[in-house]
Amino acid sequence: MTPTQTNDTTEGGDNLVNGLKQEEEIEQSAVKRLSDEQDHVLKSFRLLIADLCQQFNGGHPGGAIGMAAIGVALWKYAMRYAPHTPTYFNRDRFVLSNGHTCLFQYTFLHLTGFKAMTLDQLKSYHSDRVDALCPGHPEIEHEGIEVTTGPLGQGVANAIGLAMATKNLQATYNKPDFDVVSNHTWCMTGDACLQEGVALEAISFAGHLKLNNLTLIYDNNQVTCDGSVDLTNTEDINAKMRACGWDVINIEDGCFDIEGIVEALNKARASTDKPTFINVRTIIGLGSAMAGDAVTHGQAFGADDVANMKKMYEFDPEVHFIISEKMRKFFADIPARGQKLVQEWDKKVQQYATKYPELNAEFQQRIKGRLPEDWKELIPSSFPDQPTATRKASGLVFNPLAGKVNSFMVGTADLSPSVNMIWKDKVDFQHPDLKTACGITGNYSGRYIHYGVREHAMCAISNGLAAFAPNTIIPVTSSFFMFYIYAAAAVRMGALQQLQVIHLATHDSIGTGEDGPTHQPIELANLYRAMPTLLYIRPGDSEETAGAWITAIEAKNAPTIISTSRHTLPQLPQTKRDSVAKGAYVLDEVEDADVTLIGVGAELSHAVGVAKELKKKDIKARVVSFPCQRLFEAQSLEYRRDTLRRHRGIPAIVIEPFAPNGWERYADAGACMRRFGHSLPGKAAYKMFGFDVPSLTVKVETYLQKVQEDPLLRGEFVDL
Amino acid sequence: MTPTQTNDTTEGGDNLVNGLKQEEEIEQSAVKRLSDEQDHVLKSFRLLIADLCQQFNGGHPGGAIGMAAIGVALWKYAMRYAPHTPTYFNRDRFVLSNGHTCLFQYTFLHLTGFKAMTLDQLKSYHSDRVDALCPGHPEIEHEGIEVTTGPLGQGVANAIGLAMATKNLQATYNKPDFDVVSNHTWCMTGDACLQEGVALEAISFAGHLKLNNLTLIYDNNQVTCDGSVDLTNTEDINAKMRACGWDVINIEDGCFDIEGIVEALNKARASTDKPTFINVRTIIGLGSAMAGDAVTHGQAFGADDVANMKKMYEFDPEVHFIISEKMRKFFADIPARGQKLVQEWDKKVQQYATKYPELNAEFQQRIKGRLPEDWKELIPSSFPDQPTATRKASGLVFNPLAGKVNSFMVGTADLSPSVNMIWKDKVDFQHPDLKTACGITGNYSGRYIHYGVREHAMCAISNGLAAFAPNTIIPVTSSFFMFYIYAAAAVRMGALQQLQVIHLATHDSIGTGEDGPTHQPIELANLYRAMPTLLYIRPGDSEETAGAWITAIEAKNAPTIISTSRHTLPQLPQTKRDSVAKGAYVLDEVEDADVTLIGVGAELSHAVGVAKELKKKDIKARVVSFPCQRLFEAQSLEYRRDTLRRHRGIPAIVIEPFAPNGWERYADAGACMRRFGHSLPGKAAYKMFGFDVPSLTVKVETYLQKVQEDPLLRGEFVDL
Repeated sequence: MTPTQTNDTTEGGDNLVNGLKQEEEIEQSAVKRLSDEQDHVLKSFRLLIADLCQQFNGGHPGGAIGMAAIGVALWKYAMRYAPHTPTYFNRDRFVLSNGHTCLFQYTFLHLTGFKAMTLDQLKSYHSDRVDALCPGHPEIEHEGIEVTTGPLGQGVANAIGLAMATKNLQATYNKPDFDVVSNHTWCMTGDACLQEGVALEAISFAGHLKLNNLTLIYDNNQVTCDGSVDLTNTEDINAKMRACGWDVINIEDGCFDIEGIVEALNKARASTDKPTFINVRTIIGLGSAMAGDAVTHGQAFGADDVANMKKMYEFDPEVHFIISEKMRKFFADIPARGQKLVQEWDKKVQQYATKYPELNAEFQQRIKGRLPEDWKELIPSSFPDQPTATRKASGLVFNPLAGKVNSFMVGTADLSPSVNMIWKDKVDFQHPDLKTACGITGNYSGRYIHYGVREHAMCAISNGLAAFAPNTIIPVTSSFFMFYIYAAAAVRMGALQQLQVIHLATHDSIGTGEDGPTHQPIELANLYRAMPTLLYIRPGDSEETAGAWITAIEAKNAPTIISTSRHTLPQLPQTKRDSVAKGAYVLDEVEDADVTLIGVGAELSHAVGVAKELKKKDIKARVVSFPCQRLFEAQSLEYRRDTLRRHRGIPAIVIEPFAPNGWERYADAGACMRRFGHSLPGKAAYKMFGFDVPSLTVKVETYLQKVQEDPLLRGEFVDL
Repeated sequence: MTPTQTNDTTEGGDNLVNGLKQEEEIEQSAVKRLSDEQDHVLKSFRLLIADLCQQFNGGHPGGAIGMAAIGVALWKYAMRYAPHTPTYFNRDRFVLSNGHTCLFQYTFLHLTGFKAMTLDQLKSYHSDRVDALCPGHPEIEHEGIEVTTGPLGQGVANAIGLAMATKNLQATYNKPDFDVVSNHTWCMTGDACLQEGVALEAISFAGHLKLNNLTLIYDNNQVTCDGSVDLTNTEDINAKMRACGWDVINIEDGCFDIEGIVEALNKARASTDKPTFINVRTIIGLGSAMAGDAVTHGQAFGADDVANMKKMYEFDPEVHFIISEKMRKFFADIPARGQKLVQEWDKKVQQYATKYPELNAEFQQRIKGRLPEDWKELIPSSFPDQPTATRKASGLVFNPLAGKVNSFMVGTADLSPSVNMIWKDKVDFQHPDLKTACGITGNYSGRYIHYGVREHAMCAISNGLAAFAPNTIIPVTSSFFMFYIYAAAAVRMGALQQLQVIHLATHDSIGTGEDGPTHQPIELANLYRAMPTLLYIRPGDSEETAGAWITAIEAKNAPTIISTSRHTLPQLPQTKRDSVAKGAYVLDEVEDADVTLIGVGAELSHAVGVAKELKKKDIKARVVSFPCQRLFEAQSLEYRRDTLRRHRGIPAIVIEPFAPNGWERYADAGACMRRFGHSLPGKAAYKMFGFDVPSLTVKVETYLQKVQEDPLLRGEFVDL
């Protein structure tokens, strides 16, 4: 059966949409055009999955089994990749957004000849092998895996980022006679991913961008953990996708119709102006006695059921993990086919290098993930003296770089006027045919991305941009710091994958002012400071902002959040950009100090101000600037002790209008926030919560008196 | 011009969809059917907004001005409410999801006679008045505000929760002759909210539920901060809404067509089977010289521009904050109209009380936000001895309550098999006509909600359920703990609004096992422990799980996360449910202790095990169970010191496979996690990271030795 393409908006013929067609009906219509080999491969694949889950009596067999024909269509016929050169630059990218079906991907990696994925490794799924390549969800560290997935919806957005990366590289480096970048991105999704907001945001954006190099393949088995999808979702998904600017192709008997799926995949690759959504009706856990039921989603079928499957398929029920010679032969041509692709591409690039030596030099540098050697010189060596918001300083630091270095793709979740990321002559990343009502245009070589009010998709898409190839693209996102709470799941996935994504966050304290407690972050820094890998940096003035950007750009294997102020901050003569990389450093040293004041980010100058006031009262205060906890933790014990001097009995007091949780490691007391903020002009908000210099001075004095009266307090963290 | 209802799926006539109609054209077609009063009111309203922003040269004038006619249609004609009885139970609920346009709502509250909102208060917008009722975004604390909004998309989901609350109360308490609950929910949304994933999830769900008592009014001005919406969004929103199961009505000249809007609102209220989306084309900042431009969104127009507006409207440019007698008169009937509604409803309820005394008794109890007095007795007084996962214990504790007490509405983001929240004979909350493929049914009196894989919408909708009236509904959500990172923005809004929402989270540590690092929370507890108001509780066994639920149910003004284990935990004879409310308590006391071990949640038994091992080595260890930091902070200094005994020089060591940040307040060292987890069976994962009892015992011993060698370590937090 051929796929039915239904691109018009009139419909009524989509009988797949809500899984209304009964399973039996679909099975009866099972295509008999399968070759003997194909039939054998599908059966073998299903049994292999069943066995792999049965061995440790766990895992997710149902989805992987239901998608067997889709997998054969992809790995045997449609995808361009090279198992023996897994990082072949121009390979098609494949994302398994429904990552719990990972055995689907692992098994095809094994069958198609990825060397790391031995049968022994395949059998490590759900084992207690610490060095296993088959974790419960695909992980980017392993050969043949493009992105780590599992948290639902993320993969869909990642795939959109991967497709955007292709578009940008194509528009930048391809020439009419040389398409050095020409890959397609394929993404599998289940019912669940399509319910997640992050995917819905990204789908709308992909349609807007007309990413014709992107195909979303929907494993429409109409089952999630709770049961039938009808329990929670009765929308017309095809109509929704069309409304979002996608082409839609239906496949009715997706468990068998390899030919139809291949035809659809090829049509999708050839699409000229839209991304393609292939709605493939499948049956979860096909072959099991529980086929079509939610229980096949997340548990092994049981030994009897697996044995019965084998009998039904005329396999020996006593033999496990059967990969026949016929099966091997079916996939045997793929490594050579892949190497041919690699060789042809290498040859093409060699010719390209001859004809376009300069362009190729940059292209090669990008492939290696390197920046121009002089990138740091593009950053201003000093800043004007006048008070400057760090969000503005961030623009001064970064925009000259962004303008000159093609590696940076800079986006914002609809806060261009606030984040100051626009460089001179910036071009928007847009489909070249876009003409907005107000005349703004762009093209795919543009590197400024208007993501819309889609913080979560912005960050998840950026993970995809970064995952295209290591450091080839350095994505930058921007928004209010508070709204990185919407994107936290995606920021985490970037940290987990050690992807270099730079998040420029502004309005990072109660100093934000009138917008009130909904916009004033109190507790969010605590999440990002606790998140492994990620660098959360709060610079205190323009000089430290330069340091924050340099640190972020040098952190090739970590995402960074640069957390900046809405309001102007004084320029401090003592700050040093190079010291930011140490996490914390002494700003003002005093002999025989009575107290160390830890100043952070937008409130660093408050600490300096308090030290001055204390001096008038003969209290000697050192000041430490502390932009990043994780970087400080990476310093030697000596450096850390010398910086804080708590080991010399000098109490340290941190000043930051965030929840104190975590500062207890570095300080004995804190002027912090243990409640939400308040809608007031910034200065008034600071005053209301006692973060003005006079109030803070009193707090420090009172603390120093109190610990003299009750020495026990010195062993406890005190909230001022 | 009358609204054009286009419910069929064939279309093509929607010329509003993408704002393609030019502004001038719309202005030219401006309806002249406005009465003289209406025309005056619209002009006065716009000028008032312009003045209110001009006075402190800030704020968001454009959207509020563009929505003037919508506001008149709502507050003067369509909405049923009572300004002098703002909490009238059966009032229509209004949600301003585009909360930055708050002056829109504040001004109508003033004009329609809400007593707290004096003109003086109205003028407090953007002032430094600490007691102002006009914060930068609407806040639930203030008269006439149903929910706090500002973070985009949240309000849309809240409105869906409010509409669900109505449906549930109707189905539970209404009788054919007594519709004691009959209110409608109205929600304003801008372009931005409709791009946010949380709104998209909720919209899909509302269509599924066929919430005909819900109307979403789209202020379609086609402008966001970055400029034209076309920059980022070119989807066919009307087609998308229809695909999601909504009726769509277009209003072309939404700045003027009061009559058309009223007709649409009335039609929406009368809808029999679907929620309604009213797509109202407006012009942002109408009247300003910059009308239609993004700059009118977030800044005052400037004195000259405001003066010119006044001249154009034939008002005196020298007079500010003009509210004429004509304007006053226009709204003068509303308080009395509202009181009539209140009186009629009171009378109806009195009659209902006579005819249905038992039902009314429960209804009145619900209105007062009270539970049946004996609710605590429904919780088992003890538990079987065998090892039990706390997620399972949670079901044992709560399901008897959920089954009996109508206040609880319990939902899950597609994890019914994992969260154990299904009670005997539970009925699903569904449209009564729903018949799923697998025969599952439900109705609106059902209290089990299959939210689908929509964690963010689940939590935001739950805020709406809770906001309907204080504690009338106690919403419960459930998912894997890790995936509360998707919902963090909504959980925060619940905390900010002090709404009682209970989140049952499972799979809360590396003990989760094979699903791997994407599913193993390491850093998320740090966010929720730092979040003001919210109680994050990790119970250590069934008894503590009972304590966690009791605490959560008694916390009338706070959300709670109950964080449970996937895997079985031993039942500890020393745990006490009543002690959970203290946050931490001594589990095992020892005289002359060498060390205090702090055990938490799923790893509490590890601490107990370590203490036993240490005893064999003559090291005396006390054990403290520490389920909740916030509750502990609320105890007296004496209690806290006596519990931890650090003031007596006994070092405390915390055992928890989460990031340590924040434990430094209570402990001198920690066996915690500073990296992401690993895909391994739960026990193997614990072992890999040194959380098995033997490894932990060595860590504690080593620490005790090391601090003897280097006493400076006693002043620092040590990562074990």
